[in-house]
Formats: sequence, C-alpha cells, structure tokens
Amino acid sequence: MHGTNHTAQVIRFGQEFFLLDCGEGTQLQLRKYKARDSKISTIFISHLHGDHYLGLIGLLSSYHLSKRTAALQIFGPRGLNEIITTHFRWSNTRLNYSLKFTETSTSGMVLLLEHPQFRVSSFPLQHRIPTTGFLIEEKEGPHSLIKEKLQENPIPLAAIQSLQEGKDYVASDGNSYKVVDFCHPHPPLRSYAFCSDTAFSPELRSYFAGVDLLYHESTFMEAEQQRAAETFHSTAKQAAHIAQLSGAKKLLLGHFSTRYSDLSDLLAEAQTIFPNSCLSEEGITYTIPTSHA
Amino acid sequence: MHGTNHTAQVIRFGQEFFLLDCGEGTQLQLRKYKARDSKISTIFISHLHGDHYLGLIGLLSSYHLSKRTAALQIFGPRGLNEIITTHFRWSNTRLNYSLKFTETSTSGMVLLLEHPQFRVSSFPLQHRIPTTGFLIEEKEGPHSLIKEKLQENPIPLAAIQSLQEGKDYVASDGNSYKVVDFCHPHPPLRSYAFCSDTAFSPELRSYFAGVDLLYHESTFMEAEQQRAAETFHSTAKQAAHIAQLSGAKKLLLGHFSTRYSDLSDLLAEAQTIFPNSCLSEEGITYTIPTSHA
Repeated sequence: MHGTNHTAQVIRFGQEFFLLDCGEGTQLQLRKYKARDSKISTIFISHLHGDHYLGLIGLLSSYHLSKRTAALQIFGPRGLNEIITTHFRWSNTRLNYSLKFTETSTSGMVLLLEHPQFRVSSFPLQHRIPTTGFLIEEKEGPHSLIKEKLQENPIPLAAIQSLQEGKDYVASDGNSYKVVDFCHPHPPLRSYAFCSDTAFSPELRSYFAGVDLLYHESTFMEAEQQRAAETFHSTAKQAAHIAQLSGAKKLLLGHFSTRYSDLSDLLAEAQTIFPNSCLSEEGITYTIPTSHA
Repeated sequence: MHGTNHTAQVIRFGQEFFLLDCGEGTQLQLRKYKARDSKISTIFISHLHGDHYLGLIGLLSSYHLSKRTAALQIFGPRGLNEIITTHFRWSNTRLNYSLKFTETSTSGMVLLLEHPQFRVSSFPLQHRIPTTGFLIEEKEGPHSLIKEKLQENPIPLAAIQSLQEGKDYVASDGNSYKVVDFCHPHPPLRSYAFCSDTAFSPELRSYFAGVDLLYHESTFMEAEQQRAAETFHSTAKQAAHIAQLSGAKKLLLGHFSTRYSDLSDLLAEAQTIFPNSCLSEEGITYTIPTSHA
C-alpha cells in the first residue's frame, strides 16, 4: 500500500496471510480496505525507520483489544523487541496472545520460515541502518498424477508416493516409473521479493534471481540521483536496473518521495530500462498467477 | 479529532498552537486538514494507551525530516521519555531540534506552563494507568482604558499603570481612580478542560469549575454502564453529570466506542442531563468566543 501512506503490504499465500512492514496507520488502512487483518500470522519488518514500523504497536494493541488468541510471529531487526516491550510495559498490557519475536540478521541470505507450501528468507539491503529485504518462494508441492495412466498401468503404492514427491521410481522387479510419464507438468513456482529501502546495489540480484515479482523502492527520479545516493535510496531507473540484472519478470515500484505529485514520468524512466514496470498503489492487490510463461 | 481515528486535538491560542494527545495517524490527519502542524510548540499526552500517543514518534520524526529547528516541549506521563529515546536510539536519529520532556504527575492540580496570555495545568483522571486531564485558562490581560475618560480627567501615570493591571488607585492627594470608572469591562476569561479517558468521577468537578468548554470522554451509552465502570471509561450521561456538577458552559463528547455507528442516541442521553452537549467530530474546529454571556 502506497500513496500518502507509509509502507505495509499484506501477502496472501493460500490460507496464510502475512504483513511486510507496518508503517503508521496500517491498522486503519487494513480496516479501510477490509483486509482480513485478523488472519495475519506473521509480520516481517525490514528496518526501524518510522515509515516502516510505527504502525506495529497499534496493530498489536488492537489485536489484544479484539481478544485475538492466535499466536503471532514477528521477524525484525535488533531493537524492535525492546521497543515493543517498552511500550507494553508502560501501558501495563499483557497480551492475550503469544508473540514470538525473531531477530533478523544482515549477514547474507537467511531462511526465516519454512512452511509446507512456501519459505521466507531475508537478505541484506544497503540503507542507513540495518535493513533486510524479504524473499517469499513457493515450494514444490506434491505432483499431480495423470489418472488415465494409473488406470492403464496398476503401479505399486511406493511408486505413487515417490512420483508425487517428484522422484522417479524403480521397483524391485526392475520396472521404472518416471515422473515425466505419470505426472502432469508441475506449474512454475512463484516468488516475490520485497526491497523496502535501499541504495542502488547490483549485488542484490543474486538474492532473487529470476523472481516473478520484484518490489523495489524508487524514492527518486534520475535528476535526484545524487540525493538518492546520499540518503541510501534508489531512483526508478536504478530499481529497473536491478530488475533487469536479476531477471525479474515484473517490477513494482514504490516508496515515492512526496515531492512527486504525478508519477508517470518516474514510471517512464523505469520503463526505458525495464518495460514491465508498474507503480504500486494504495489498496491494490497484485496477483502472481499460478501458471505463467 | 474523532471518528474512526484516534484522539488528537490541536489547540490554538492567539499565535500559540499545541496538541492534546497524539493517537496513531495524527500526522496524516494534520496534513489532511491542513492544520499548521509546524507551528505546534507544545504537546500534552494524557496517558500511555496507544490510541492517545502512538502518533507521537511519527510526528517527531516528520518534524526532523522536514528540518524543524524550533524547540518542542512535551508533557506526558512517566515512561514516555523512555519510549521516545528507545525509538530514536534504534533508528539512529539525532533530532535537528531541541526536545524538552517534562513528566506529568497525578497528584492533584499541577501548573505545567505559564504563558503571558494563558496557563496550562494538569489534573488526575481515573483510568487503568496513570492519566491526567489538562486545563487551559486564559489569563487576565491588561485592562483597556476608556479614552474619553482620560481626556476629561488627566490622571497620574502611576494610576494608569494600576488601572491597567485591574487595580483601583488612590493618589497622594486623596483622589481615587476606580477600574470600574476608567476601564472597559474586561471580557470574560476563557477556559477549556480536556478529560481524555476516565471513569465517572464526581470529584473532577473541582478542577475545572465554571469551565467554558469541557471535553469529556463518553465511550459508552447508559446500557453499557457496567462495562464503562470495568474499563474505567464513562457513559455519555456520566460525562453530562460532570459537566453539570462543574458548571461547565458547554460539553463536547468524544472517544466513542466503535460499536456505535449512529451517535444521535448517545448525544440524546447526554442532553437529558446537560442540554448544551455536542459530539466532537473529526476535522472540526470548536471556537470559544472571546466575549460570551
């Protein structure tokens, strides 16, 4: 969600909802757009600049007041846990639900969460204070068997299990069962990378090579390249370079300076380098289709 | 400002602006209503429940980013300073402007700020954590002399000074100069009392006897009186009782539970006790006229 508001993105994967960053006013925005905020199980905070986390205490308080009982997990930088506990100590709040905090690290790629269907990792960004991006990758699910093939050739149960896991199987009688023969082609696996605040940094590409959708900040236009470098932010063209270098399929620009009232020129600058760029907008849902080219 | 948003009120007295409470999203609301937020010199925080102060760090950060240099004073409960410094330590922020924090106390009426034209005091409210209300009182300015009287009767300079200060004067020659004869009637002095979150507490009346405008929370309607007592909040009727007991001239209701989509019945309940009650609304300015009955 962008616009005049601060960074916060709800990610849905099947029945799992989580939140990437939580700027001031996020709970009000979630209510406005009727996002199912009570379903959010995990919150990832990229860094401790106000526009990326100041809505967190309010959201946690509202969960408490609305009698949430489901556990909540938070991943964020060192310091965030102290901030949370300081607030709740002074407001004399003992949360109704369990809150688990895990500190992120800026040392390379780190696996944060392993779910049966996806995994989430963090990777370092280049900003004024410790900052991480997040990569969400769909995991290979069970392969779906071609029913007609099973009816033609009765096959051992062990072979079925192996094929569903995507592995060829050789039975004790020497018969072999190949995934390519017995299973539907697996749909390509989807991925999303989130680069909240960062200076232009070509080495980022290795963290999300071939990603389906890349969100990359583009605070400034090219004329402000100097200012971007000084403040550890990026221009739209630089974001497009990263998209190109990483082989991303689509680029979502965001975190625009309030100096730009019309963003069409900023978008045009990105598109000179990476045509499949678009502007992130407040309240809009971006879907990564299950099956794509 | 009320509605779906959290508590925050901008008070203007002449060229002085200050803020009473600063719930999440206050800086966005100030921008939305084009309030002159950069003019705010002093912020008063009633207590450390999220809906009354979670917008403070964001506002202070924005002042920093917009290169504010004017000093800012904050009055608030113990703990608020620790919260502020914890945030700025982790975001590695050294504010451009000087921030002075003064801890409030819940022991009786305490004078916080003495300005040539007004004073601000705090007084204890009855809530789940230490909470204060605030009283803003106009001070008596110099009396204005009736020019025609001065032309008729030349009077000594010492008498003029005395009359301007509102005191009668007897000269060494025995002539007496009375304020009532030489000065325009002084306009009544204005006052505003702010009771953010509090249980029904009749003893509050002594803190703002005869106040012009009383803001008093009215979270609930009478049917929820039990719940109001349990949560240390008030009903609209209880707020009206306080207004009546204190001899307030007008009552502004606020801090309504989100359970009420239509507030006309809540207002009606208050008006059965105190007819000059009204609902506070988001973005609306309430003026206390200089001259009133």
